[in-house]
This record gives sequence, C-alpha cells and structure tokens, in this order.
Amino acid sequence: MGPLVQSGRVPLTEAFVGALRDLFGERLQTGEAICLEHGRSETHFASMPPDAVVFAQTTEEVADMVRLCGEAQVPLIPFGAGTSVEGNTLAVRGGVALNLSRMDRIVAVNAEDFDCTVEAGVRREQLNEHLRDQGLFFPIDPGANATIGGMASTRASGTNAVRYGTMREAVLSLKVVTADGRIVRTSRRARKSSAGYDLTRLFVGSEGTLGIITEVTLRLHAIPEAIASATCSFDSVKGAVDTVVQSIQLGVPLARVEILDDMQIRAVNRWSKMDLPELTTLFFEFHGSPTYVAEQTETVRELAEANGGGEFRWANLPEERSRLWKARHEAYYAAVNLRAGAIGWATDVCVPMSRLAECIGETKAELERSSVPATILGHVGDGNFHVVFSIDPTSPDELEEVKAINARLVRRALDMDGTCTGEHGIGLGKQDWLVEELGDAVDLMRSIKTALDPIGILNPGKIFS
Amino acid sequence: MGPLVQSGRVPLTEAFVGALRDLFGERLQTGEAICLEHGRSETHFASMPPDAVVFAQTTEEVADMVRLCGEAQVPLIPFGAGTSVEGNTLAVRGGVALNLSRMDRIVAVNAEDFDCTVEAGVRREQLNEHLRDQGLFFPIDPGANATIGGMASTRASGTNAVRYGTMREAVLSLKVVTADGRIVRTSRRARKSSAGYDLTRLFVGSEGTLGIITEVTLRLHAIPEAIASATCSFDSVKGAVDTVVQSIQLGVPLARVEILDDMQIRAVNRWSKMDLPELTTLFFEFHGSPTYVAEQTETVRELAEANGGGEFRWANLPEERSRLWKARHEAYYAAVNLRAGAIGWATDVCVPMSRLAECIGETKAELERSSVPATILGHVGDGNFHVVFSIDPTSPDELEEVKAINARLVRRALDMDGTCTGEHGIGLGKQDWLVEELGDAVDLMRSIKTALDPIGILNPGKIFS
Repeated sequence: MGPLVQSGRVPLTEAFVGALRDLFGERLQTGEAICLEHGRSETHFASMPPDAVVFAQTTEEVADMVRLCGEAQVPLIPFGAGTSVEGNTLAVRGGVALNLSRMDRIVAVNAEDFDCTVEAGVRREQLNEHLRDQGLFFPIDPGANATIGGMASTRASGTNAVRYGTMREAVLSLKVVTADGRIVRTSRRARKSSAGYDLTRLFVGSEGTLGIITEVTLRLHAIPEAIASATCSFDSVKGAVDTVVQSIQLGVPLARVEILDDMQIRAVNRWSKMDLPELTTLFFEFHGSPTYVAEQTETVRELAEANGGGEFRWANLPEERSRLWKARHEAYYAAVNLRAGAIGWATDVCVPMSRLAECIGETKAELERSSVPATILGHVGDGNFHVVFSIDPTSPDELEEVKAINARLVRRALDMDGTCTGEHGIGLGKQDWLVEELGDAVDLMRSIKTALDPIGILNPGKIFS
Repeated sequence: MGPLVQSGRVPLTEAFVGALRDLFGERLQTGEAICLEHGRSETHFASMPPDAVVFAQTTEEVADMVRLCGEAQVPLIPFGAGTSVEGNTLAVRGGVALNLSRMDRIVAVNAEDFDCTVEAGVRREQLNEHLRDQGLFFPIDPGANATIGGMASTRASGTNAVRYGTMREAVLSLKVVTADGRIVRTSRRARKSSAGYDLTRLFVGSEGTLGIITEVTLRLHAIPEAIASATCSFDSVKGAVDTVVQSIQLGVPLARVEILDDMQIRAVNRWSKMDLPELTTLFFEFHGSPTYVAEQTETVRELAEANGGGEFRWANLPEERSRLWKARHEAYYAAVNLRAGAIGWATDVCVPMSRLAECIGETKAELERSSVPATILGHVGDGNFHVVFSIDPTSPDELEEVKAINARLVRRALDMDGTCTGEHGIGLGKQDWLVEELGDAVDLMRSIKTALDPIGILNPGKIFS
C-alpha cells in the first residue's frame, strides 16, 4: 500500500456529538490523543484517526450506537486491542471508533460442554487465566494478546491451529448487533447444527463490516495431561518442511509447529536473549498422555533426523516452555527491531502444504537479495507463513521495495493455489489481491455487504472499497 | 408437518421445454415415473414431483440451466442421491430437478496436501474406494451413500464427526453456479484463509437455495494405523452418556461413538441379524497407533465399567467391523421396518453435552408412552440424536401423534440451548422451528437469500417459505 489518506470524511455534527454525549457521558472522547491512538496501525499504514471514540459497556449500548450512526450516516469502526496488521481498524473515512475493550466480562463457562461465552473485549490471555483452574484452555493463539471479538472478526489463528483449528472452528455462536441496530444470536450452543445459513461463519472474518460482534461463544479444550516443547535446527527450509509434512502424514497430532528462518532466529536471540543456533528452526509442541506424547516426539525426532535436523532441545519445565513461546510471540517485535527506529510490515500468505517449501524457498532467495532486513516465520503445519520487514521510515525507496516484494510473494502464493492472507485479514492492505484471488466471488461478498449494511456505515472501506 | 401440497405451480411453456431439449437432448426427461422419483422423500413427506428432470454433466451446463430457469422464472432444484430426510429436494412449486449424479468425476487427489476435488455427484463410498490405495480417507459419514454435493448442501455429518468434524470443517472450497449463472470458486486450496467473507461456509448448509454446488474440495485424513471397534451395553442412558462425556474430558479422541437405545438394538438385531443385548448400547471406534488405540480403549473401558457398562464386545477384524457399522448404517431402515408397510419419520436435534442424558431420557419416557414404535439413535459425542418413528400410513392419528411428539422434542432441545436439527437441515420440516430457534437472525438469512437469488428460482420454499 502507498500511504493512504482519509477520504470522504465529513465532520461530526454538533447534534450527533450531543446525542452521543447524552448516552455515553465521559465514555465519549474526542481528544486528539485518544483519536490518534485509535487511528494508528501496528505496521506501516498511515495514521487514520476517527473523529471520536466511544467506550461501550453493553450490547444494548452498541445497538444504540449503531442506530445513531445509521441515522447520521457516520462510519462506525469496532475496535478491540488494536493489534491487527492490515489496517483493519483504521478510520478511512473518519467517524466513530467503538472501543469494546471494557466489555470484558466472562459471561459463562460450561465446563462439561467445553464451551464458554465471553464479551467481545475479553483478551485471550485473560480468558486462559480464568479457565486454568477448571482444567480447560482456549487454544487459538495469534501471538498478540488480542481481544476475542477482534480475533473472531479477523478469523485469527496462530500457533495452535494445526491441531485445534482457527477462529472458524473455535466459535460456536455470536451475539451480533446488525447495521439496523437489532441484536441477534447466530446459533445455539449445540456443537453442530444444520439450522439454516451459517451466519456464525459469515460474521467470523467479516472484519466488522457486516455487524458488530459483542459476545462470542467459544469451544474449549481440556488442558492436556502432558505437554512437551522442543526446538530443532535444520540446514534447509526443505528439510524442516518435509519433517512436518511427513509427521502429519503419519498422523502425529502436532499441537504447535512453527518455522523461523535464520534471520528470525538471529532477531529472537537478540530480542529475547536466547542462544538458539542461527539456522532455520522448528519450534514444536506435543500434547497428550505421557505415553502418547513420548510416542509422538519419538516419531518426529526420527523424521527430523532423516531430514537433516539437529538435536532436539527440550523445554519441558513450564518456565522454560513459557520462555520459548514468549520468544516466539515476540518474534514480530524482534524482527522489526533488527534496526533501531524501524517500522514493521507484516505480510502473510498460506499455500497448500505440498508447495510450502518451494514458496518459502523462493521468498527467502528474494529476501536475501533485498537491502531491507526481513525474516520469515510461520505456522508451517497449516502452510501459512509471514514475512516481517524492518523498514527505514525515512526511505521511500525501502517502502517501494517492500511493496514490490510483497506483491511478488502474494502472486507466488496465488499461483500455487494459495491465499493472499492466512490469518491477518484483508483490511486495507490486501484488497486488490482479494479480487485477484477470488474474482467474481468478491461480487457475492459485495452483495452480502449491501444486503446487511445498505447504507455502509460499518467499518467502511475495509475488505473492499 | 401435515401433508403439504404443491402450490404456486406454473406449467412449463413449450418454448422453455424446447430450449432445454436443444441443450440437453435425451438428458431432459419429463416422464411421470422419473418426475415422481425426483419428487419423493425418504420419509413422511407427500410426493412433490418436478415437471422435468435434467441430468447435467458439466458446470457449464449447470450455468446454462440456471440462466434458462432465471429467464423463464422456473424453479430449479438441485438433486443428488435423494437421501435427505426433511423434504429438502421436493419440488414445492414444480419446476425442474437438476440431477447432478452424472457429475461423478474425481477431479484431483492431492495426497501430500490431504485434499481432493470432486464433482458434486460423487458419492462418499465411491470416493473412499478411490482413496483407499493412497492411504487416505474422507471421514464424513451420514450413513446413507449420499453425494458429496448433497452432503455439503445439508451440512451433513454423522458417525465420525466427534473426531473429524462435519461438512462445515471438511469442505475447503466450492465451485458454485450463482443464481445469475456465473461460475465462482469460493476459496483457494490453502487449509485456512482470512481472505474476505467465508463464502464456503455460507454455501455449506444452504440446501441449494443460494447457488448450485458443482465441485467440492475436501480435506482428507490418513487412514489410521490401527482401528478398533467395540460395543458396550448399559443399564441406563445416563451411564452411557456419562461414559462419553468423561472420555472426552480426559482427552480421548473417540473416532466414533454412537448411542442406540433398546428399541433400536431390537430393530438392528432383527434387520441386520445381530445378537446384541437389547439394552442401551454404545458403538465405539478408536483410531491411532496400536499403542495409542490400546491406551484409549483401556481408558474408555474403565469409565464404562464405572458407569454401569457391561463387557466390551470387540469387532477388530475388518469384516466384523464392516458388519457392525453396516448394521449401524441400516438402523434407519431397521427402525422403520419394526412394522411391515410402515413409513418412516426421522427427526434430529442436537443439544449441549451437559443436557444430553436429560434430553434423551425425557424423550425416551415419552416414546414409551406412545403407541407408535420409535427408536433413539445418535452421535452422542456431539450431543446429537435422532428419533425414528415407524408410522402406520393408514392412520392419520399416528401422524398427528408423531407430529406432536416431534414438536415437544424440538422444544425440549431449544429449551436446553440446542438446535432443531443437528445434521438433517431445515428443508420443509423444520421451518417454523428455525424461526423459534434463531428469531431475527432468520431475517438476515432472508436478506442474504434475496441478495444472492433475487428472483427466487433456487430450490424455492426451502429453509424459509
């Protein structure tokens, strides 16, 4: 993306602001600092602040907001933790950011049903702390401590998806405020249903453009009896990827398997004070009974060895394991900070497993020719990987170079029957690629958008403009 | 449902039939017998034949059909194997049945990616025979040898869903003909994506009302190294259900776990010449490495014993296993044929696991008071169960009684935060219940239907009228 500018922006009227003030009092804020905070991106996008920020506390308040914005034709942008990376929450046309982070109640945990219902502003770490005593956990882990509502909106996934699925599989039901201010529930709490269109899955991944998610019912899992984590270095990307493909072919239920290239390991070593060999590395996690975990690890260890992998370095004490995964979670910041004062650009593609080694290999070769430092890391069990660039903000040339590398990466993934984004969403950054990827199917998406949000107030300018 | 009648039916014009004849020649059929065959239901619904049947051979032909029907405003009903049980393919307003069973090519199997692409008319048994040599299988198993297109349209699931998910999880991508005759692909072949709205999941379960599925890309699984099957009888429904809940809580990845009540076992013993104790019975299947299967079975055996279960009867030879699951698959016919000349009514609800024992228990008590023979069988690991009634077709009273029992069953499930259908779809039979279940959310479904099929030619009168 070039530096986008906000367009079509109409100042809020005094009457509209007065109506908001009547409803929300001090929870309506229009100061420059708070608007800027809600108009920044984690990555390279230009700042696009809203004109106001409202902190909602209930679903009914969200419905009031939607009605007010509908009447006044003011854009409304749902906002969680602000951790998205494709400009998904930027106020392209101004309007009001609806901050849901104070809707952070855990409404119910149904341990026997392995589900829970939470408000959209609950963060995933908060949820897992709450669940731990009951022997349950929520597996979806995009790295950032995102809100559950934001994760649902972006169809997030992350390190555990190879075993436990993505938000697509994790969400059982949603409470959603529609563009005309109605409150609907998309599904009951049964684990499966054939009752009509799958509205749950339609809202998951719709990036706040079809309705505003205020409550999420999630599938949970039992904390496994045994957990083992390890790292293993490889001479080649191909050896690492082949190890994973063969493990899955043998039915090993890898709970996590992450790839980090040599540059990413270097960044992690520096940022998180680790001492990993600076080679392409797999981070593994195995879940199950002690016997079963031992069987899994032995199978994978043998495959790794046959594919040129080194020794397994185990991290089996809880604190060692935490340190390892914390380093993985901070990999984005580690990569951006390869250079002081740099800004980050995180891109994301996903390809069929059979093409992954080739896709990463070609990308790696291109990165090595580039003057911009960049790392590769990814959820190798899903065929999904990221490239993180560390860009000098004073250099327009670097931004252009990264833009071109990103374009070639996405085209490479599409040519392999992959997708332009495995888990970051379309936001602002991947709109042209969405059309390239799905063609006329995007017209169906537009028809659905028009049907559910006819005046176009919900997060306008995202997914398609 | 009372005996519905076809309404709003307009005879096909000669010009329209001529246009079909030009395109399809002998593959257009208008004889009474073939129309009746496409207008019958597996269950209690009145016959509602279409005015013509067309056998399509390619996606392009389907697109031609849709355009012709659109211009002439003639209803078009996609038809696979005709195994649905809620009247999902009946020609409520006449029109043309589009039989896709000759689109039965397996387009591609990508073994390394664990996926395949098939035409909509491929049947699940055909697919599994094709896959066997490659060590792969497609797990979704609704019992009937349905077409993959039909299974996608109904969001089918069945015996393996507890481990492998439903068609919701199994479908990676679809080729769909839209109501205006365009051919779209809903997704690329990557295992996950955040690229825009989840059109794949929107079409899965839409029962042919939003578009016509002509190709399906499916996730596959490796045939497990070891498979073990067993049955176990219980004195009480609660003991059986508790065994399953506790097994799942301990993380046992049950591949199949089916409940059959005493009446259903009696029916199976008679129909399939089995000699099972006529008590509430669980049918289990375990998948994994030999060690892991042994560990799973030992855990479950101990839990069963603690919950009043009898001895495990093993069926470990492939032919014994086939016999067992064949008996399970024929359970519907076994139940209907508890009385000679009876017609069947198969209903289907799904509730949160914590309410399942109660829901089955109350239902069982009611069935015991009824004069109509009925059985209970279900996918107990999902909270999903069926009641099959064996109805005297000469008795209007019996039909009324079953209608009332079904209504109370569905209300019971809804009161437990369950769904009116776990896997059969809405079709004609569950339309009022859909509204009761989801309220205003059904209006969103209607909006989507209008957006994607504005003149309403695709399987009209289904899901909502």
